[in-house]
Amino acid sequence: MKKPKVVIVMGSDSDLPIMEEGAKILKEFKIACEVRILSAHRTPKETKEFATTASTKGVKVIIAGAGGAAHLAGVIASHSTLPVIGVPIETKSLKGLDSLLSTVQMPAGIPVASMAIGKAGARNAALFAAEVLALQDSKIKTRLTSYRKTKAKAVIKKDTKCRKRFLK
Amino acid sequence: MKKPKVVIVMGSDSDLPIMEEGAKILKEFKIACEVRILSAHRTPKETKEFATTASTKGVKVIIAGAGGAAHLAGVIASHSTLPVIGVPIETKSLKGLDSLLSTVQMPAGIPVASMAIGKAGARNAALFAAEVLALQDSKIKTRLTSYRKTKAKAVIKKDTKCRKRFLK
Amino acid sequence: MKKPKVVIVMGSDSDLPIMEEGAKILKEFKIACEVRILSAHRTPKETKEFATTASTKGVKVIIAGAGGAAHLAGVIASHSTLPVIGVPIETKSLKGLDSLLSTVQMPAGIPVASMAIGKAGARNAALFAAEVLALQDSKIKTRLTSYRKTKAKAVIKKDTKCRKRFLK
Amino acid sequence: MKKPKVVIVMGSDSDLPIMEEGAKILKEFKIACEVRILSAHRTPKETKEFATTASTKGVKVIIAGAGGAAHLAGVIASHSTLPVIGVPIETKSLKGLDSLLSTVQMPAGIPVASMAIGKAGARNAALFAAEVLALQDSKIKTRLTSYRKTKAKAVIKKDTKCRKRFLK
Amino acid sequence: MKKPKVVIVMGSDSDLPIMEEGAKILKEFKIACEVRILSAHRTPKETKEFATTASTKGVKVIIAGAGGAAHLAGVIASHSTLPVIGVPIETKSLKGLDSLLSTVQMPAGIPVASMAIGKAGARNAALFAAEVLALQDSKIKTRLTSYRKTKAKAVIKKDTKCRKRFLK
Amino acid sequence: MKKPKVVIVMGSDSDLPIMEEGAKILKEFKIACEVRILSAHRTPKETKEFATTASTKGVKVIIAGAGGAAHLAGVIASHSTLPVIGVPIETKSLKGLDSLLSTVQMPAGIPVASMAIGKAGARNAALFAAEVLALQDSKIKTRLTSYRKTKAKAVIKKDTKCRKRFLK
Amino acid sequence: MKKPKVVIVMGSDSDLPIMEEGAKILKEFKIACEVRILSAHRTPKETKEFATTASTKGVKVIIAGAGGAAHLAGVIASHSTLPVIGVPIETKSLKGLDSLLSTVQMPAGIPVASMAIGKAGARNAALFAAEVLALQDSKIKTRLTSYRKTKAKAVIKKDTKCRKRFLK
Amino acid sequence: MKKPKVVIVMGSDSDLPIMEEGAKILKEFKIACEVRILSAHRTPKETKEFATTASTKGVKVIIAGAGGAAHLAGVIASHSTLPVIGVPIETKSLKGLDSLLSTVQMPAGIPVASMAIGKAGARNAALFAAEVLALQDSKIKTRLTSYRKTKAKAVIKKDTKCRKRFLK
Repeated sequence: MKKPKVVIVMGSDSDLPIMEEGAKILKEFKIACEVRILSAHRTPKETKEFATTASTKGVKVIIAGAGGAAHLAGVIASHSTLPVIGVPIETKSLKGLDSLLSTVQMPAGIPVASMAIGKAGARNAALFAAEVLALQDSKIKTRLTSYRKTKAKAVIKKDTKCRKRFLK
Repeated sequence: MKKPKVVIVMGSDSDLPIMEEGAKILKEFKIACEVRILSAHRTPKETKEFATTASTKGVKVIIAGAGGAAHLAGVIASHSTLPVIGVPIETKSLKGLDSLLSTVQMPAGIPVASMAIGKAGARNAALFAAEVLALQDSKIKTRLTSYRKTKAKAVIKKDTKCRKRFLK
Repeated sequence: MKKPKVVIVMGSDSDLPIMEEGAKILKEFKIACEVRILSAHRTPKETKEFATTASTKGVKVIIAGAGGAAHLAGVIASHSTLPVIGVPIETKSLKGLDSLLSTVQMPAGIPVASMAIGKAGARNAALFAAEVLALQDSKIKTRLTSYRKTKAKAVIKKDTKCRKRFLK
Repeated sequence: MKKPKVVIVMGSDSDLPIMEEGAKILKEFKIACEVRILSAHRTPKETKEFATTASTKGVKVIIAGAGGAAHLAGVIASHSTLPVIGVPIETKSLKGLDSLLSTVQMPAGIPVASMAIGKAGARNAALFAAEVLALQDSKIKTRLTSYRKTKAKAVIKKDTKCRKRFLK
Repeated sequence: MKKPKVVIVMGSDSDLPIMEEGAKILKEFKIACEVRILSAHRTPKETKEFATTASTKGVKVIIAGAGGAAHLAGVIASHSTLPVIGVPIETKSLKGLDSLLSTVQMPAGIPVASMAIGKAGARNAALFAAEVLALQDSKIKTRLTSYRKTKAKAVIKKDTKCRKRFLK
Repeated sequence: MKKPKVVIVMGSDSDLPIMEEGAKILKEFKIACEVRILSAHRTPKETKEFATTASTKGVKVIIAGAGGAAHLAGVIASHSTLPVIGVPIETKSLKGLDSLLSTVQMPAGIPVASMAIGKAGARNAALFAAEVLALQDSKIKTRLTSYRKTKAKAVIKKDTKCRKRFLK
Repeated sequence: MKKPKVVIVMGSDSDLPIMEEGAKILKEFKIACEVRILSAHRTPKETKEFATTASTKGVKVIIAGAGGAAHLAGVIASHSTLPVIGVPIETKSLKGLDSLLSTVQMPAGIPVASMAIGKAGARNAALFAAEVLALQDSKIKTRLTSYRKTKAKAVIKKDTKCRKRFLK
Repeated sequence: MKKPKVVIVMGSDSDLPIMEEGAKILKEFKIACEVRILSAHRTPKETKEFATTASTKGVKVIIAGAGGAAHLAGVIASHSTLPVIGVPIETKSLKGLDSLLSTVQMPAGIPVASMAIGKAGARNAALFAAEVLALQDSKIKTRLTSYRKTKAKAVIKKDTKCRKRFLK
């Protein structure tokens, strides 16, 4: 098996239905990835261990999804100079506004790149990771361009269909 | 010098004007306290070191003030079973709503006790620490009762003055 | 029956499904607890009676859950110098943002320790109460450490399972 | 001196610059009023004493201004069936959103009538009290009608001036 | 049939399930009431007609429920010096925060007394109307006291039941 | 087929159930309209092409619905001096607050006219477009007046029914 | 003097510093405009009079600025089928969030086109009015195109200057 | 002069005091950067031109700062598969909450990596760009490690000073 270039971590396995949207996209882009459950609060030792060693193991980008007082991305970023992308997970009461602010409002010095709340965020985290890797890998660059074209075509097709439907 | 029962930590010395309001109250209550600058993000090693050893050094309560993606209290709580009190510090743009949600919305398993945003929160963190210590120390209990009476008297005095002023 | 060390109060029995999450944890920690329905607004006399006498009856920590204009924790705190922990209950319209702000934004002088909105908050209120009691009771300290280890192990197990699943 | 028909209470004398806007209007309407400092949290006994006896002393309407976890109006309403009007006071960090939600989101059974945050709210609380008293007092009714006409005229005058100014 | 003392108006019949909670309470208090659909925006003429004539028809208090850009209570208040109580109705997207702010943030000069969002607000509007009418009608005063006692007893009964249940 | 005077565009066909509410109203007003799927982000070229040529093709008003970081209306407005109306679409997590702010908070120079979030907004966008076209077309003016009367009558009918129902 | 095509109204002359930004732009576009102070709440009669007669006097577009429970645009829209543009004015406490929601969240049937909060909104309201008028007046169309070009050139000039400055 | 690896763009030169914080850090890291004023709304052609050609000119990362309906980062991302980092600029009324949501809530397919509101965001955008470039450039990696150490040392020094000061 290939060594993972991207690691997707999340605070709880209840976040998996959101975060695996990112894993699917990485697979589509043929980017080796690992998916892990690491809790900033419940397994801080394992989280730190992962963050401090990721770079030496060949990891290039870390994606971290968490909800509520979402510290996971920030804690990882405090232990690594790899690009860390945060995905705020929707919460029951505050709907992810808490997760978003806990992820994005990082103090100067320790950057976390926040994506949108939920599945769109998880997908875009993977695409952003691909964009970063594409700086060194022209194949990924090509796949990105192709991915965009496919998406654009799908929209154009729907546009054509929609225009016709409302012509009547 | 006495060993500190309470440690007040904050992420940056720019938080000192807020957090020292708590230190003043602890002094008033004759509770030995230490004040430290520890950043969850910039000095994670020192923060962890502090959190994991505090209990063995005789610390009973930890007060942590931070702003923005305020992870400090949560990070400390992840490394200690001492009661950890969080004080959300006001931020320039979002006025501390980010700090509050990052502090209070902790996941089940790792409690952080959040106070109000800003100086009122810093003062109440110290009073709450005193309430915890008072469970074992009747002198602090007496001081708490006396403190409340003094504050009540001050309000009553202002009430009397105010009623008179508007009688005219 | 043992005298309760912790009392869990709530404004309405509709809050029970949330608050009993805390009672379960206290039971797990073998901490004698009582659960009561006391409304700051509808039974203010009973609430005050409870708050003013709790300390003399051996209560060490009070947990108060309430929603909307959530005054319960604050009203109890105004009548007692025991540590009072507030649990904001989710509301239909504003999703507990009202409950959170009414609980946490206490004025200087009368502290209330706020937990997260909803079940996570109810559980953490119980754990925080255990942390406070553990300062005097090494058995509870041991149970806290053990509780954390169990939770960490559960996360680690899920991590192992998750890594395997995505290896394919 | 006449017995007060309206009592304006507030949690702290720092709220006076806001709340006396209401007192001025009551004076303008020749409605006897008293102004008091009563803290739901710091002087709960005095607050309760006031609330439970106000009706028997001839008070008809109570206006309560408070900020943050603004429990004052709610606590008074829990002890009285007089109409209680709440004025949310602006706070430093959350700008009175906390005060508003703590005042207005009362549970069914104990009504509090909330006005706008700040000075507009304090003035309208007094006008609303006048509207309530006017149901029994035709002089106040007349003054209300006259007050509205005066305000309307002032707007009309400004309208005339403004139209002219921009004609150029 | 008796002439209505209180009129409950709402912007749309979709608000009826909320607002009739108020009508039920007024019935329970034997206060003659009328329930109407008047839209500030779609039937402004009828709304104005109602507001300007309500006082002369013996109406004492107006309760107005509306959602979104909830102008109904304010528009009525602009045409009447009767006490106008606003009930913010929950909306699909913003959950009534829009309704609340549109109702409560009235400019100085034209008061609207806002209640909580939704059913609790509709009930409290009726109770508040009863409190206003009770100033002139000792029977309503008696019913209010009795209502509160009944509600308190219900809470006390639940408290007793709850304590027993958790004794086990 | 008549050349469209109004074009309704949206970022995704998942927005169709909302936006076709506008199309229905335009049909009712006999205003030729086209409905299109154009994504500011996924088909920027097509979006620009549409926006820059709309005016020359006889389009008078553009309605653009989008959710989340809702840039569609703004992007179209940056390429056209036709009146552009934005409809914020409700989002899963933030309920359309994100869509509203992204649509309405346009910088000076490039206006977008924002309607309410969701279906009410889509309908009002169509009515507003009709109001704009009515400035040149007295038939549409007549239909607008008639539409309002019909809506008013429906409210009046419900009012009559409601008054009767509650008379009992 | 020419009959005004656009009327700018506002609830209070304290809104003038904001709203005259719109008047300046209309002047720049040589669009005859009138500026008026009309309060939905304090001068409802004058407001209605204005709204119902504006169309017959040759007015084409109405711009209404208001703050807090900002009903002005909605009230005018309820009395006219002219396009009504709302400008939410910033408020002291809630910073215009209240004004924005009160302006934009109009119910289906009575559209109000909301602009951004404050000066940008006032300017864009004027530009949007110009865009509406430009549908019938090619001179205004030309001025709009020219206005945009001027603004674009100013940005391009700043871009050139900025690039140079940071070249060093 | 070296070809820029990073381009910092912003919608208006009024954003320069914020965004040049990022330029300073890039200079400190010896990363060639260009600073430009490009408005998504006022100079869409120039913005698109820049975005579509950046990659071929050797640009690796784009940083875009904008306020209000902050579309700049999203518009650039729609025309490029380079990593685009968004910096939400604080606004007068809504304090950057609008800018944040407009930047971060991107739809799936077109990622934008959002940083915190304001100066901290601008600095972290530069550091994040450095982290991305460090994947290919070990010198930047070394500088990042050194930068973190320097920042950590500064915190530790302040910690030592603070502990001493409060020892007294």
